[in-house]
This record gives sequence, C-alpha cells and structure tokens, in this order.
Amino acid sequence: MKLKAMSAAILAAAAVDADAAPPTPRSERQERGAAMLEKVDGAGGVQVVGTLAKSFPDFAAYILEYPFGDIYSRPGLGLREREIATVAALTAMGNAGPQLRVHIGAALHVGCTPQEIVETVMQMSVYAGFPAALNGLAAVQEVFAKRGISLPLAAR
Amino acid sequence: MKLKAMSAAILAAAAVDADAAPPTPRSERQERGAAMLEKVDGAGGVQVVGTLAKSFPDFAAYILEYPFGDIYSRPGLGLREREIATVAALTAMGNAGPQLRVHIGAALHVGCTPQEIVETVMQMSVYAGFPAALNGLAAVQEVFAKRGISLPLAAR
Amino acid sequence: MKLKAMSAAILAAAAVDADAAPPTPRSERQERGAAMLEKVDGAGGVQVVGTLAKSFPDFAAYILEYPFGDIYSRPGLGLREREIATVAALTAMGNAGPQLRVHIGAALHVGCTPQEIVETVMQMSVYAGFPAALNGLAAVQEVFAKRGISLPLAAR
Amino acid sequence: MKLKAMSAAILAAAAVDADAAPPTPRSERQERGAAMLEKVDGAGGVQVVGTLAKSFPDFAAYILEYPFGDIYSRPGLGLREREIATVAALTAMGNAGPQLRVHIGAALHVGCTPQEIVETVMQMSVYAGFPAALNGLAAVQEVFAKRGISLPLAAR
Amino acid sequence: MKLKAMSAAILAAAAVDADAAPPTPRSERQERGAAMLEKVDGAGGVQVVGTLAKSFPDFAAYILEYPFGDIYSRPGLGLREREIATVAALTAMGNAGPQLRVHIGAALHVGCTPQEIVETVMQMSVYAGFPAALNGLAAVQEVFAKRGISLPLAAR
Amino acid sequence: MKLKAMSAAILAAAAVDADAAPPTPRSERQERGAAMLEKVDGAGGVQVVGTLAKSFPDFAAYILEYPFGDIYSRPGLGLREREIATVAALTAMGNAGPQLRVHIGAALHVGCTPQEIVETVMQMSVYAGFPAALNGLAAVQEVFAKRGISLPLAAR
Repeated sequence: MKLKAMSAAILAAAAVDADAAPPTPRSERQERGAAMLEKVDGAGGVQVVGTLAKSFPDFAAYILEYPFGDIYSRPGLGLREREIATVAALTAMGNAGPQLRVHIGAALHVGCTPQEIVETVMQMSVYAGFPAALNGLAAVQEVFAKRGISLPLAAR
Repeated sequence: MKLKAMSAAILAAAAVDADAAPPTPRSERQERGAAMLEKVDGAGGVQVVGTLAKSFPDFAAYILEYPFGDIYSRPGLGLREREIATVAALTAMGNAGPQLRVHIGAALHVGCTPQEIVETVMQMSVYAGFPAALNGLAAVQEVFAKRGISLPLAAR
Repeated sequence: MKLKAMSAAILAAAAVDADAAPPTPRSERQERGAAMLEKVDGAGGVQVVGTLAKSFPDFAAYILEYPFGDIYSRPGLGLREREIATVAALTAMGNAGPQLRVHIGAALHVGCTPQEIVETVMQMSVYAGFPAALNGLAAVQEVFAKRGISLPLAAR
Repeated sequence: MKLKAMSAAILAAAAVDADAAPPTPRSERQERGAAMLEKVDGAGGVQVVGTLAKSFPDFAAYILEYPFGDIYSRPGLGLREREIATVAALTAMGNAGPQLRVHIGAALHVGCTPQEIVETVMQMSVYAGFPAALNGLAAVQEVFAKRGISLPLAAR
Repeated sequence: MKLKAMSAAILAAAAVDADAAPPTPRSERQERGAAMLEKVDGAGGVQVVGTLAKSFPDFAAYILEYPFGDIYSRPGLGLREREIATVAALTAMGNAGPQLRVHIGAALHVGCTPQEIVETVMQMSVYAGFPAALNGLAAVQEVFAKRGISLPLAAR
Repeated sequence: MKLKAMSAAILAAAAVDADAAPPTPRSERQERGAAMLEKVDGAGGVQVVGTLAKSFPDFAAYILEYPFGDIYSRPGLGLREREIATVAALTAMGNAGPQLRVHIGAALHVGCTPQEIVETVMQMSVYAGFPAALNGLAAVQEVFAKRGISLPLAAR
C-alpha cells in the first residue's frame, strides 16, 4: 500500500515533466516500470527513484521506462539471475557504490540467498581484482547489517 | 577423453614450474581446479589455459588454483549463476574481449540458454552503457556462430 | 532516399520483434529515434543499427528508442554539443572503439569541425591520460582518412 | 582582485619548486595557465589548485601549465564546448567526483546553462550506464544547491 | 609481538571457515601469506584483513593465500617494486581508495621513500589523467599526515 | 645515430606546428623530452611519436614535453621503477594495448629484467583481475617474441 502510493508519487512527479515532453504515449511503459521497480527493489529502489524525481523528473521517468519497464520486464532471464548479473557488474565496475547497495537489497528482495550474494561478490576478485571484491563486500556488510543478516554466514 | 588428456597436459606444464616453486602442497587444488575448468568451460577454457601454460606455467597454475580450484568450486552459488555473473561483469568492464568470449561459451556449456546470455548482455546497457552491451553482443554473435546457434533467437 | 529506405528497414526488422514483445505503443518513439539517428549519424549509424537488427532486433529497437528517440531528441543541448560530449566520453572510457569511430563520423555529420573533434580528443589526455587520447586520435585518423580529411589540419 | 591575489599565491607556491626544478623557462606557460584557470573555473578551480600547491607545488604547477596553459588555451574549441566535454568524460568515468563537481561549476562559469549541464550528464546514461549518470546528477544537485539554482529546472 | 598476535587471530578466524571448506591443505600458504602481509603492510594490512575475517573469513583466507602467500612471496621482483606497481595501478584505476591508502602505507613500510611514492602517483597523470593523480595525491596526503611526514617534501 | 636523426625529425615535425602556436619558449622542454624518450623507450617510443607527429604535430609535441620532458625527467624515482609503474598501470587499466606494448619494450630498454616485467604483470591479477593480467601477458609474449626472449623464462 505504502509502496503503491510511493510509486504513484513517482508517476505524478514524472507526469509534470511529461507535459513538457514531446507527445509520447509512454505512460504504459512507466506503469510497467514502476510495478517492476517495486517488485525488484521494493522500498529501496522506489525511494531512490522517488527522491530523484523531485530534482530530475525526466531522468526518473527514464529509469522507470528503460531499465525497469523495458529490460527487467523482458522474459528469458529470471529476476534472481538479473540481480546476480547486476550485483556482479556493479561490484566489478567499482564506481557505483550507491547503486550497488540498492541492488544488493534488490537481490535479497527477489529471493537471492545471502550466500549467493556473497559468492557473487567474492567471485569478482577473479575478474576485477581483490579491491573491487573487498569494496563490494563492504557494501554487502552495510546492507546486511540494516536487514539484520548476521555475518559471517553460517557454514554452508 | 581428449579433454582429460589436455587437462593432464596443463598439470604437466604447471608441474615444471611447481618444481622450482616454494614447497607448497598445491597439487590437490590444481587437480580440483583442472576438473572444474573442464566442467565449466569445456574445451575452450582448457585450450586457453593449456596454451598459456607453455609460456607462463606459473600463471596457468594460479588460474587452475584460485579461480577454478577455489572460487568456482565453492558451494552456495550454481555454475549457471556464476557464469551469468561473469558474462555480466566482463561485458560491463569492456576490456576483456577474449575472456568474455570464453565465458559466453562456458555459460552455454553449464546450461545457460542462448536467451539467458543475450538477456544478460543486453541488461548491461543499463549499468555500463549501450557501447558495452553492443560490444558484448558482438562477442555473443561470434561465439554463437561458431556453435551453430542462429540469430535472431526465435520469439520467446 | 537511400537512408530513408535503410531506416525503414530498421523499423521493419524491429517490427518483427515488436510482434513478440509486450503490447507497448512504442512505434512513435522508434520513428522519432530512427529519424534522429539518420540526422545525427547519417549512413554510419543507420548501417550499424541495421546490421544489429538482423541479429538482435530488440536491442536495435532499444537503441532507436532510448538513445535517439528519447535522449538525442531532447531540447536543451545542441546536437553539436551532444556529439562533443559523446566523443569525449568514449575517448575517455577507452573501451568502445567501434562506437567512438561512429560518433566521430556523427560529429562531422552534425557540423563539428575537424578541429573541434581533434581538440576534444586531445583534451582527454588531461582527464583520462595520454594513452586514451592517443587511441582516440588513431580513431580520428581512421575516420578522417575515409572521408578525405587531410591531417595534419591546416594551421588554425 | 581576490582571485588575482589567489592566483599570484599559486604562482608563488609553484615558484618555490621552480627554483629546484631544471632550468626551464616555464613561467609564461604558468601565467597563461593561471589566467585560464581563473577564466574557466573561477574561484573553485583556483582554490583547488591553491590548496594543492601547499602540499604538492610541482603538481600544482603542472596543472597550471599543461591542462590550462596548453590545452584549454588552444584555439579551435570554445570554452563552453571544452567544459561540456569534461563534464561528459568525468561523469562517464565515474571515479573523479571532486573534479566533476569543480567542472560542473566551471561549466556554469563559462556560460553553459544549467539545462545544458543536466542534459550532458543525462546523456551519459547511454554511454556509461544509468549509475554513472545518476552519480553525475547527484554532483549536479550538490553544485547547483550551493549556487542557488533550483531543481527541477523550469520546463524548457 | 602485537602484530604476531593479530596475524594469529587472522588464522584463527580463517580456521573456523577452513573446517567447513573442502579438505585442502592450505595452511602453509596461509602462514606464508600472513607472514608476508605483516612484512609488506605491517599493522595496516593486518588490521584490514583481521577485520575482514570477522565477517568474511573465507575471503580473508584467500587474501592471505593468493595475493600474499602466492604473488608477493614470489622471487623475481623486489617488495619495493611490487608496492610501486600496486600504488601505480590503484591510483590509475581510481576506484579503490581504501586499498590505495593501505598500499601507500605498505610502500613506506617496505622502504619506498616518500618522494618515490609521490613521483609514482604524479606519473599516473600521464597514463590515467590528472584527476586520478589528484585523488591519489589526496590519499598520499592523508597517509603521510598520519605518519608525520610533512608536505611539501624538501627539495630534492 | 639513427635515433638521433629520428628525434630531430620529431622536433622538425613539431616545429611546423610551433610556428602556428602561441609564442611559448618550449623548445628546451621538447629537447629534454626527446632525449628522455630516446633514453626510455629507444626506437619503439621514438617511432610512435614520430609517426604521430605527421598527423598530430601538436600532440606529439605535448608528449615530448609533459610525459618525457617534465615527468620522466624528474629526479626521485628511477627509470626502472617508472617503467614498472607504467606497465602495472597500463595492464590494470586494460584499455591501452599499443601503449602497454611500447612500455614493455621500454621497461626492457631501461634495464628491467624479463622476469621483473612478467612479475609486475602477473601481480595485476590481484588488483585488476585475471583477465587484465592475461591480456597483459599476451602483450608481454608479443614483445618478448620480437626481441628473441624465450618463454617460459628459466627457473628463477
């Protein structure tokens, strides 16, 4: 309910901009994107986009539309796999800390286990180096702490 | 069989180096790594490491040991998910073309569908930009062509 | 004329996919994007996207829609400035050679002078290092040679 | 006046080092660079380089000399275009937050409109991904807030 | 003594995990790695790994084993050169601030002069751009301040 | 002798441009830079800059001036250490293949042993990942082959 209202607020904020924009029928993509954002990221993602919409409503709209309305809404790859891919990429790139934290939360939200997330981040030591993995684990630690997930994880 | 022989060759090449190396009991990790490399990457990965071992035997040994003997051998994340994470990261980083192609092959080898791979690469447009995704798709196209996978993929 | 036909071909290729996709009224964005692509990149961009559409029609559609239909179609920044920004970014990132070459061509196409392009690339030595600028200049040289632009440029 | 004095202070600090350096007649480049730094970045850039000169006088001198004395002083590309290129590159690279904030200020200082800056940063979502653009917009927001530029910008 | 105890603590923490892990005789590599970590990084590195081991004992073990037990323990390149290489790489990559600070400390610890470190970081302006070098110098300043090394360094 | 003539040619090419440039007394820095380039890179670097000067004489001049005339000419860090730092950084960044090959040659030219170079590149697996190290080793192999250095290197 609360999330519903927040995602309505996102659309409202974006709508301000939509008036000024060229006459594109993009509301359906936005709605699909807002629903997907809520499904994928839960409160975390909705809050990020909602805050963004206050200052940059067009860009908030684009985020609803392309990443969530188009890409995440596609069949052919599960949401768990999509979040593992995103956590892997953001850890490897190492220059998107806030987004990495949001997507660690999203990974938990769509059903990845804490262990799957830790494994994904640790694996990045192979492809992007130990510092990237270490900084990724620091983000994991921060997100897990907020959600009451104890570290170290119990033995597998 | 042929793969078995090749992975024996890797160990043999690495063994030359192991003689000179400090007395570390690392043969078990190497064996586990060589088996995992074969399981994950099949011929592609074995060939890459085998060729490497001729010029840089120590580094070939490290690749068997750490990425494959240690990381990929861990429980807690499936091989399909590990390859999705790797394809995502290498596409996003955009500076490791040969390794991306090997891991697109590995992803197929461990059971990812062609569509899952294409979706993973396309998703990177969101996190690393359209050029990274485009170059990733070019690698996909090359690997799929060699394996007789037709593009475009049939409608989902 | 020829470009018109090619951009129709892009839409046709993308349309195949649109049938399978969720029922989104995105044809208007695609048309706007295809027109903008032609305006910005001319033959180079259209050819790249047309070729892409044969293997990855969905992604070709996204490229028409988001980068060109949404972003480049926005008011508030001239096309010359948009291409300078893109040439700068791709030179600095250094991992998107094919796209850099397309956008050097696009920069010329929208009216940037050869000198402006060379200056933009050289400036990247400050922000991304001399190798990034050197590799960018190699791309400039290649594109200029195809278009009969002699180097060195005449004294300013 | 105050800026003049600050840039004199930069030269003074750098001069300490110049004594120790090989006998290079580089004072003219430094003066040209200091004047250009003031023209381009105003107080922000001068302050950054002045602070730097206290700890690393040689490097402060190099910054006056090469980026500002050599590159920014070249004809063939306007200062507005140079700042758009720099904002684009630093947003895309995503690992130079302090410098990005300085150059968002510099872009305003040389006459870029707030909208041109926002458009440049948003465009980077295409080339470097949405996280890079989001982190760039966060920097925009911070710089604009200090300068009393309200967000969202009025409809175009 | 204190360091000895800390590195014993690292092994203890890692041992918890080793019980759960596959039966790999890796204790020797760990011991060699812990000794090398202490030799290279002194208190800084030991503290980082010790803290890490509380939350991610496996990854702490890997850090002892591969970077320190395997790579840094190899003959053929001096520790001073190894730290110069690492400071150079982390400065150039620009997305690993905490690790850069640790390795600036490590470089001092293995006998690099403050000037060698400053020169290495400044040189990165050539290869990775001035922002990377500036952010590297900021890290140098922070580490030097904690160790009572005054800046600017005395004339060479 | 031949190198002397080539570096005279570089200056000649750059001089064409210097006529058009603002009246900066930069010839001394250029001479120092050309001499340093020859000292550091030998034929490889001189050839690269000489070729560059034909198309981009200003940028060739900057390369003589800043990287070689200013940075490499500084006291406080040996040329061997400078080349190790550069090989490390270019391997880690992974997007500057041509420059990496030049500097592997330069490292040999200033007295780094083949083993030191291989160790530096292998060490980058820790900081930038195994693909970066693998691609760096491929560059090593290519440069060593041209110079008749056999791989694998003899046991240490």
